Parts: sequence; C-alpha cells; structure tokens
Amino acid sequence: MSLYKWVLLIVCISLNTSNLFAQEKTESRVPDYPVPYTYPSVDSIKGVLNRVRNYYDSTCDLKIIDSKTGKEITDFTTPNKNARVSEGFAGEWSYTNGVVLSAFEYIDDVTGDSTYFADNTRFFNLVVKTLPYFEKNHEVFGKEARGGWGRTPNFKALDDCGSIGAAMIKTYLKNKNKDYLPLIDTIADYISNRQFRLKDGTLARHRPQYVSVWADDLYMSVPFLVNMGKLTGDHKYYDDAVRQILQMAQRLYVPSVGLFDHGWNKNSGEYDPRFYWGRANGWAILSMSEVLSVLPENYPGRNKVLDLFRSMVRTLAHLQDGTGFWHNLLDKNDTYLETSCTAIFTYCIAKGINEGWISHVYGPVAIMGWNAVNTRVLKNGAVDGTCEGTTFASDNTYYYYRGRSIYATHGYGPVLYAGAEMIRLLENDKFIIVKPKPNSINSAFHFLLKSEWPEK
Amino acid sequence: MSLYKWVLLIVCISLNTSNLFAQEKTESRVPDYPVPYTYPSVDSIKGVLNRVRNYYDSTCDLKIIDSKTGKEITDFTTPNKNARVSEGFAGEWSYTNGVVLSAFEYIDDVTGDSTYFADNTRFFNLVVKTLPYFEKNHEVFGKEARGGWGRTPNFKALDDCGSIGAAMIKTYLKNKNKDYLPLIDTIADYISNRQFRLKDGTLARHRPQYVSVWADDLYMSVPFLVNMGKLTGDHKYYDDAVRQILQMAQRLYVPSVGLFDHGWNKNSGEYDPRFYWGRANGWAILSMSEVLSVLPENYPGRNKVLDLFRSMVRTLAHLQDGTGFWHNLLDKNDTYLETSCTAIFTYCIAKGINEGWISHVYGPVAIMGWNAVNTRVLKNGAVDGTCEGTTFASDNTYYYYRGRSIYATHGYGPVLYAGAEMIRLLENDKFIIVKPKPNSINSAFHFLLKSEWPEK
Amino acid sequence: MSLYKWVLLIVCISLNTSNLFAQEKTESRVPDYPVPYTYPSVDSIKGVLNRVRNYYDSTCDLKIIDSKTGKEITDFTTPNKNARVSEGFAGEWSYTNGVVLSAFEYIDDVTGDSTYFADNTRFFNLVVKTLPYFEKNHEVFGKEARGGWGRTPNFKALDDCGSIGAAMIKTYLKNKNKDYLPLIDTIADYISNRQFRLKDGTLARHRPQYVSVWADDLYMSVPFLVNMGKLTGDHKYYDDAVRQILQMAQRLYVPSVGLFDHGWNKNSGEYDPRFYWGRANGWAILSMSEVLSVLPENYPGRNKVLDLFRSMVRTLAHLQDGTGFWHNLLDKNDTYLETSCTAIFTYCIAKGINEGWISHVYGPVAIMGWNAVNTRVLKNGAVDGTCEGTTFASDNTYYYYRGRSIYATHGYGPVLYAGAEMIRLLENDKFIIVKPKPNSINSAFHFLLKSEWPEK
Repeated sequence: MSLYKWVLLIVCISLNTSNLFAQEKTESRVPDYPVPYTYPSVDSIKGVLNRVRNYYDSTCDLKIIDSKTGKEITDFTTPNKNARVSEGFAGEWSYTNGVVLSAFEYIDDVTGDSTYFADNTRFFNLVVKTLPYFEKNHEVFGKEARGGWGRTPNFKALDDCGSIGAAMIKTYLKNKNKDYLPLIDTIADYISNRQFRLKDGTLARHRPQYVSVWADDLYMSVPFLVNMGKLTGDHKYYDDAVRQILQMAQRLYVPSVGLFDHGWNKNSGEYDPRFYWGRANGWAILSMSEVLSVLPENYPGRNKVLDLFRSMVRTLAHLQDGTGFWHNLLDKNDTYLETSCTAIFTYCIAKGINEGWISHVYGPVAIMGWNAVNTRVLKNGAVDGTCEGTTFASDNTYYYYRGRSIYATHGYGPVLYAGAEMIRLLENDKFIIVKPKPNSINSAFHFLLKSEWPEK
Repeated sequence: MSLYKWVLLIVCISLNTSNLFAQEKTESRVPDYPVPYTYPSVDSIKGVLNRVRNYYDSTCDLKIIDSKTGKEITDFTTPNKNARVSEGFAGEWSYTNGVVLSAFEYIDDVTGDSTYFADNTRFFNLVVKTLPYFEKNHEVFGKEARGGWGRTPNFKALDDCGSIGAAMIKTYLKNKNKDYLPLIDTIADYISNRQFRLKDGTLARHRPQYVSVWADDLYMSVPFLVNMGKLTGDHKYYDDAVRQILQMAQRLYVPSVGLFDHGWNKNSGEYDPRFYWGRANGWAILSMSEVLSVLPENYPGRNKVLDLFRSMVRTLAHLQDGTGFWHNLLDKNDTYLETSCTAIFTYCIAKGINEGWISHVYGPVAIMGWNAVNTRVLKNGAVDGTCEGTTFASDNTYYYYRGRSIYATHGYGPVLYAGAEMIRLLENDKFIIVKPKPNSINSAFHFLLKSEWPEK
Repeated sequence: MSLYKWVLLIVCISLNTSNLFAQEKTESRVPDYPVPYTYPSVDSIKGVLNRVRNYYDSTCDLKIIDSKTGKEITDFTTPNKNARVSEGFAGEWSYTNGVVLSAFEYIDDVTGDSTYFADNTRFFNLVVKTLPYFEKNHEVFGKEARGGWGRTPNFKALDDCGSIGAAMIKTYLKNKNKDYLPLIDTIADYISNRQFRLKDGTLARHRPQYVSVWADDLYMSVPFLVNMGKLTGDHKYYDDAVRQILQMAQRLYVPSVGLFDHGWNKNSGEYDPRFYWGRANGWAILSMSEVLSVLPENYPGRNKVLDLFRSMVRTLAHLQDGTGFWHNLLDKNDTYLETSCTAIFTYCIAKGINEGWISHVYGPVAIMGWNAVNTRVLKNGAVDGTCEGTTFASDNTYYYYRGRSIYATHGYGPVLYAGAEMIRLLENDKFIIVKPKPNSINSAFHFLLKSEWPEK
C-alpha cells in the first residue's frame, strides 16, 4: 500500500463513528480553540522573525556617546569619563542579548538570510573596538567613569559573561574576527577558574542564600563551555558542561515531577522548597539542547543528558496549557501563561524532533507552542507577556505575581530561536504532517514519520 | 449495642462541637452545593432510564429503505444498490450502540423491565435477517451498494465489531437466537486471528502512528472476549482478555498517577507523552469490570485485574470534581466536566461496591457521580455534555477543546449502565446509608456496612 | 567583607539586567499582589492578637446560670437541674477552646502580656470549682440535669478531653493550681487506657466507619500526652505521643504527596480513598510541633518526627496559594482558601524556623501565611473564613463545599498561635530579613542567616 493510501485510510477511519442523524447540528460540535489549532506557514514565521529583529534594532543605535552632551564619540584616543554606549537592549552586554545574538547566528544557518548575523558582527566588533577605550577611561577616572560593556572584563557573576560569551564564540566561528579571542579567553578563565563553585565543581553563587545553586546558571555557563570546547578542541570544556548539567540535575531535577526546581541552597539542603519556575526550566533544557547539538554522539555523559532531555519533554507535553502556552510556575495552572518559557520549550521540542532526540509525535506540541508565542509578538515586533527578571525566591507569592512586559528582554532570543526551529520543522521532509481540518468535529494534528510506513 | 444505636451515636457525635452562640447565623454556614448533595431515589433513576431509552428509540425507526425513494424495503430477495438501514443511532452497527445494547440487557437483569431487552432482540434479529441481503447487494453492485451494517462482516478495526459483538453475545445468551452465532464467530475470528497485534499479543493499530496501542481498545475487545469465553467455555478467550488488560496496563497505566495514558506508540516508546483522557480511562475500567464479573474468582490473573481496578478507583475518588463530575482530562481541573466518563466511573464504582470488589466507603462517590450525570439527561432523554469521538492525539490542545453534544453517542450506554447499577446500590441491603440532612452545617453521606457493626 | 556589604551586593546584583530603555513603563511591570507582599510589624500583630482575644472574651461571660430563669448561680451547694454554663465559645469545654487557651499560655511566654493567661486561670478555676456541683446535679436529677463541662469527666471521645486537657496542663505548669490535677489524671486515664485503639496501639474510633483512624486525633491526643510526660516525668507518655505520630503517618501520610490523608478505615484498607484536607494536616503538623518542642533532642523517635515535619513543610511551601493561603483541600486549587489551616501552617513554619527545625529560607512562606490570615481577622476580632466542623467523609463534594464562618471556632487558637510565633520570627536576631521594595519590578523577601555569612 502506498504511503498516500495509508494516510487516506487513517483520515477515513478517524471519522468512523457515523452518527448521521447528528449532522443537523454539526457547528456546535466543532471545538472552539482560544489560540488557533492551525498549521503556521513558513512565511508567517519569517515575518515574525523580521518584525522581532526590526524591533530589536530599533532599541539602540549602538553608538558611543558622551552622556553629558548626548553627542556621539568617534575619537577613542582621548579619555572621557562620560563616555558610554547608547541605551537600549541591542546595545547591552547582557545575557538576554546573548540569547538574541546566538539566535541570530542560528537564523543565519537556517534561513540563509544574512541580515540577522550582520547584527552580531556589528555588535561584537564595536565591543572589542571600544573596550580598551572604556578600560582606559576607568583607569584615568576611576569610579566616575561608569560607561562600558557591563562588568566586562571584571565579571562578578556568570550572568555577566556566559550567555553573551557563547554568542561571541558562535559569531567568531562564522566571521573569524580574531580580535574577539582575548575577551573570549577572559570569559573562559572566569567561568572555569574564578566563578564560585561547590566542592564537586558545580557552579554556584552566594545569592540570595550564602551557597546557592540556580538552574538558570546552566544557561549562564553551558552554552559557553560547549562552544569553547568546539573552538579550542579542549575536552575539559565539554566535560565541565556535562558535569554542570548532571550535577545540577542531581540537586534540582525532581524525577517524580520531571522538572527542575528553580534553585537549591546549602542551608535548606535535602528539604529545599520547590518552585518549578518556567524560564529556569527553559534555561536548563536549552542548555541540554546545546550540549546535545555540539557533543559527539558517544561523548561520555551525553546519553544521560539525552535521557534528561527526553524526560523533561514528556513532562512539558503533559503540562502544556490548552492554549499552547506554559504557565509561569509550570505545574500550577492558576499562574499566568508566560512567553519566554513557552518560546524556549517550543524551540527545544522542535529541535529535538529535527535532530532525532525525541519522537516526531511531539510535533503538535511544538506547533501549538509556536501558535501561542505568535499571539505575543506585537505588530512592531516587541515580544509581550514575558516574566520580568526573577530572583531565586522562597515563596510562591513572588513567583505567582511576577510582572510581565515587552521590557523583559528574556523573551526575544527564545522567540527568535523558536521561529528558526519551527521553520526547520515545517520544512523537514521526514514527516507528513496531517493537519486539522477547519470546522471538523474530530480532527487532530498528526506527525507521521515517512520511514516508518511500509511502501508496497 | 444495637446497630440503630451505633448509628444514632455517630450522628450525635458528629455534632459534638457545641458552638451554641453560633446558631444566630446558621444559614450562611450551610454548604452551597452546585449539584445537589442528596440521595437519589430508585424511582427517579428509573425515570431517567426510561427517558434515555425513549430518546434512543426515537433516533431510528430501524427500517431498511431505498435511499433514493425513501421507501421501506421489505422484499429482501431482489438486489437493490440503494438499500440501506434508516439513519439514526438505534440503527447503527457501532461500538457506541453496542454499549447501549449491553446496558439494556443489564437493565433487564436488574429491573426485570423487559422493554429494554426487546430493543436488543429487535436490532440483532434485523441485522442477521438482512445481512445476506446487503452482502448480495454488494456482490452484485460492488462499491455502488453502500448500505449494510457498518463494515460487517469485513471488519477493519476492533471498533467495527468488539463492543457490538459483546452485546450480541449477551443478547444471544438471553434469547438464544441461533441465527446470531455465525456472525459472532466471524467477530471472534477477527479479534482473535486477524486484528493487528504486537509481538506479545497486545491488540494494536496502525493509527494514528504506525504501531499504536489505545486504551480504548480494551473495551473494543475485552467484553467480547470474556463473553465469548462464557458462550463457548473456551478459556483461550478469558486468557486473552486478561492478557489485554495486563499488557496494556504495562504500557499505559502509570502507577504514580493511577490512570491510563490514552495511548502509546512504538516510536515514542519509553518517552511517550501522556494524556489521561477521561473516556479512555472509562473504557479501561469498564473492561476490567467485565472481566471481574465473568471470570471465576480464582482465575489466573483475575487478582491482578482486581488490584488495578482498586487502584484506579482510589485515583478516581481523589480526582472527582466537587460537582460529582470528572474532567475531560482527568488530572486537569481546567478541562471541562465530561458526561460519558462520569457515567462509566459511576457505574464501575457502584458495581465494585455491589460485587464486593471495593469498599462500601466509595458509595458517596458513586452517588455524586450519578447526581452529576443526572443533570446532563435532558427532558427528552438526550444525554448532553459528552465529548465527541476522539482520536489518540499528541497534544493537550486537542483534548482540552473537544466538542461536546447530545450527538456524541458515547454517553448513552454509560448513563444506562450507571442508572442500573445505582438502583442495585440503593437497594443493596448490606448497607445503611446515612444521608446528609438538608440545611445542616456538617452532614455527610456515609455508607455503613451492617455486618461490621456489633449487634449486642 | 562585612555582612552589610554582602547584603548590599545581593540587592545590587538582583537588578543586574539593565534594561534602561524600559524605564518609561516601569509601573506596569510591578507585580500586583492580591494580598500585600509586605513585612508585617510586630505592633500590627499584637493588635490582631488583642482584637481576637477581645472578641473571644465577648463570646461568653463565664457564669453559671439557671437556664430557666437566666439568673446567675453563685451558691453551688444546692442542686439545680437547670444549672449550666452561660453560652459561648469562651465558656466551652471543647477542643477548639483548648487550642485558644494553649495559645494564650504561649502568648504569655512570647510577649509577657499577662492579660491572655489570665483567661486560662479564670476558665480552669471555674471548671474545677463547679465540676462537683454539676456532677451532683447529674447524680440527683439524672439526664434532666444537662449542664456541665461538656462530657467531663465521662469522656466518650478524644475530642472531649485531649486538646483542652493539654491546655489545662500548660495552665497548671504556670499557675500551679493543684485543684486541676485530679481532672488531668482522669483525662490521662481516658487517653491512655480507655479510648479505643488498634491492636498496635494507634488511637482510633468507630466513626464514621467501624474502625477508623483520623489524622485529627493526633491533635486530640499528642499535645496532652507530651505535656503529661512533662508534668509527670513519666516517659510512657512521650513514647505514646511519638508512637501515635509515627503509626498514624504509616497509615495516613502519603510520601509521594507529602501530606496526610484525612483518615483511614479498616474496610477500605490499602485502597483507602484520599482527601488531603487542610485542617487535618494542620492538626497533624501542630502535634509534631508539640513533640519537637517538648521532647529532648535525642529522644527515641524524635528524629523521625522531625523528618516528617520537614517533608511536610516542603510540601506546604509548594502548595501555598499565591495569596499566602492554603486551600481547603490542600492539593486542589479549585477549593476555597481556608483560614484555620493557613494559621496552623503559618505557626508551624515560623516555629520551625525559630527552633531551627527547618531552614530559615522558609521565612517568606510564614510571612505570606500571616498576611493572608490577617485579612481574615475582622475589625471586632472575629476570625472569618474557617471551614466548619468536618467529619471524615468519603467524597470530594463534601470537602469542596464545607461552609465557613466566624462561628467555626477552629480558627481562633491557630490565629493566636500564628501571631505569637510571627512576633518571635520578626524579633529573631539570627536573621537579616531583606524586604521587598514597594513598586519594584524584582524584589523578593529573603531571610538571610547572619551566622552563614563571613565577616571579614
């Protein structure tokens, strides 16, 4: 039997309860989906990506200015205590901008549209070009000279360098601008040698509690580490990346729940309170995705990471809201529907299918994740509904009522990543995607794996 | 002490916090139940059963007609490509009609009212009387002759024969119409020998995924198998029935949740996404109920089925909504309250108590299940609020927003079964049922097992 | 680095994503908490305690009256069949009044305000002074003489004596009124020798089912037992208290859930339906708190109780509603927010922190618990929103729709206890409490343990 006939058979069989008398009232029997249960087009996704990039570009003109006069500085030889980067997201040396720039580099791979990656070169070139100038200003004027690229190069936390550093390596691997290398090395040194760790090597912080482990720190370290491994060929970075995931999982991943607790601290130890915050779980699974993408298939520990990835995807499919979103506290359906975690999960699930890490049957979960995300991208490309920056807290109240806005920049990179991966998914010719028929009583998304079905 | 005194003592003690000053405001302290927390009468239940049967009867006049002329055909010797059964639920060779006809046979047992079983004889007699005619039409006219009894006898799925076949055997065992036997044998052959199975014998389908196991298929096979065993005395049918339950449970029952995942497929394997859909769990437990009813007490494997039944009942009591309903996704309280699964669970819990498979303390769960179902039976006997036919899907969105209507015929049989078993429960003289007092602050249902209480 | 600098560093780092362009719309990004996410003052808590005590005092004038004439009786030598205690909560020999009087004694310890404990002396002195009179009346007039102190001294249930008996011992230990001792001994005899128990010694009832174990019975026995141990020095009471907790936990505590099932009965046995009712879990953890408070640190079994306490606190932190309340069925977010359990949990968590049984990180959970409770104390000191007296039922419907009112006296003692312990928590100088800043986008409560942070 041909594949086409198999599919036809399935469609027919799925209408097999012939309640003919019922047809008088068919309309009222049709599901009423709050977010469309429909197939997104590749073009519509590309449109979303463009809008988001345009919005991003509009947030900052990426100039060095004199904050007193407001005028652009182009002469970087004369020290100036008022020199600073013009304000705005696209000019930030921040972990959220790191996600965007990593996503741009990925979109370049997926779509071949070079306008995204152009932003990477523009940003990092400016950073390395002006960093000596800012350092000089600081040397000359001390604390009065506040401008610069975040805490670069005097990092005080993984937030200061891991995510944006990963983007910098990815950018270097494409544009080969050797001027990036010293700063990349500084970051590597910070993460590998200077950041506080537990005795077993797990990355940790004295914040908010004296010895705290944050699930978020997976993304603040692992993408950098695996890409540093890729850049240098030195396996110690791969080993550290795998170790971070497995050791954090040991403390934070709760197998009976299938999610990461937001954080752990030494004082509460075994009896740590648990908060399954959406975005932290996003950072965790996104980090696994990086490890799985970069590490060779048989690399030690990679299979354990893969198992964790799969378990988490199963949980996520189960916890997805009917709208396609996930909740800010993933296991609490009375918390709001959050954009950034929804985008990350959409990316990771689509990615997992495309790479063969998880079954194609998860396809509809990714599609509805994207459809949900799509409702949050405003006309001007701003990404709405993202939970604000969030500390590792100790009470549900804090997590339940986090603000959300287009100014929480954590949503932008994930939406870009999700769109890119959805394009790959929709263009993946390993599948037939059976689409729900409009106004049908019983019509579902099904991803069918062509290679499974016999061709006779 | 006499039993009466014990009960009196309990009632008194349950008022033992004497907040006398509180009595000024007693009214506001009385619970406000959205579905009445009251004792249904046997008469009211019989009224419901009558209305549902009358509605069912009204859906089809059970004639063979010429679909072109609309006229009844009574001469079954002349081939006619336009011959078909008149439209309507009561004229369907379908699994949902199978549940109704099985329930009618049971109501006959429970109430002695022979008007229900009369429908069984009428239907199956017509089937066997006209089947050769429809086969002849097909032989003569090929695909042009579309009329007939579903896909009978060329079954393509368990849906086509298992449930209605079980009803046919039950009908045969009562009316002994030997003309049924050839068709029953054809069904037995299909289920035992021709339906696709996994290597271990588990019944499966290539739908929607290439190798899929559906919890629903328990009801599409097990009631037929156990009744075939009863009819023939051949234990291979019993063994197969037990095997289906235990092997499906191995793949689909999640012990930490206490429910059946709707389905499993080979591709997602160990990391199958999980959807605890109400009705599929209904079919599963209803099938166990059939096994427990028919198989001798010490039959191999029966105790494992009993354990499964008990575990599931415990879960169901825990997940029942305050209204007495269950949710369409059983573990998700933001999905709608669904009629068909509520009716099946009500039947199974009442049945379990009556047969001694579970403790009598579950009595109030059954009562509230029935009270909920009762709100869904319209004046004309149509059963409302039943989830439409549902495929085994891969995303929550699909399950969250399934349509519901009186045309989803899956609710009728379960409501009839539930009513019959509730009559048995209310008439079961092993218990004293302590009823909640109207307008009482603290008054609950309690089923007390007479034999437990000492008579002194 | 000084502790002050550490804290400052934390506060600064928590603002480290510098979305400067975002500041135009800061207001909309600020969380909107339905119950204030703020730091309660010790004075405001003392105000609440005063109001509650005043309301309590107003419920009963604690006179012995002739119920026919309404006149006060002061001559206790002449038998009078109409003699009774004036109506009202503060005049009840009841378990709920026992919680209040125990809390009064504790407030006396915590605040040194002797007006609370004065109520204890007043009440118990009146009880022992008039008990012989009521007994005489009963002797003379039989059942016609209904007045008296509950069922004292002819107890029929643990409810009749355990909680109020514990308060009586605590009162005795402070005022040393030896007239209390005979009644205390009678209670000890009832609990230790006369109350029905399972074969393994677990306290049980024939209510509502023939052999039933109630989580509530922990509070109806354990506080008395441990205080009796303290009073007498006889370890058999300690042993029995520990045994009750551990053996009840064996039957009722579900480790995968981390809560106590409301009750168990012999008939349903292993397949007992589960209802995680708020207040029963409150009584359970409050009883553990008593054991942990009184028993020496290395007392056999105490560590197991401590583990149980810790596990339960972890569960509670996870299940707390965003408002700070807990739900009437703790694991069901569609049941109402209940006052009495919220107050008990608030007390136990604050107590656990103060005593070092649990980590200080649970501090914000206690604070929000208190803030929630605070919204339920009316201007006149009545405690609203408490679930009415509740039997051990077998169906969710009963638990979902329990009435609530200021006349459910179960909330008063817990609120008083919670307030007292919150005062201790806020005055506990082991911590720095980082408070959320008003109108801040990202500002959480953090309890920091001073001793953990290095002083350099």
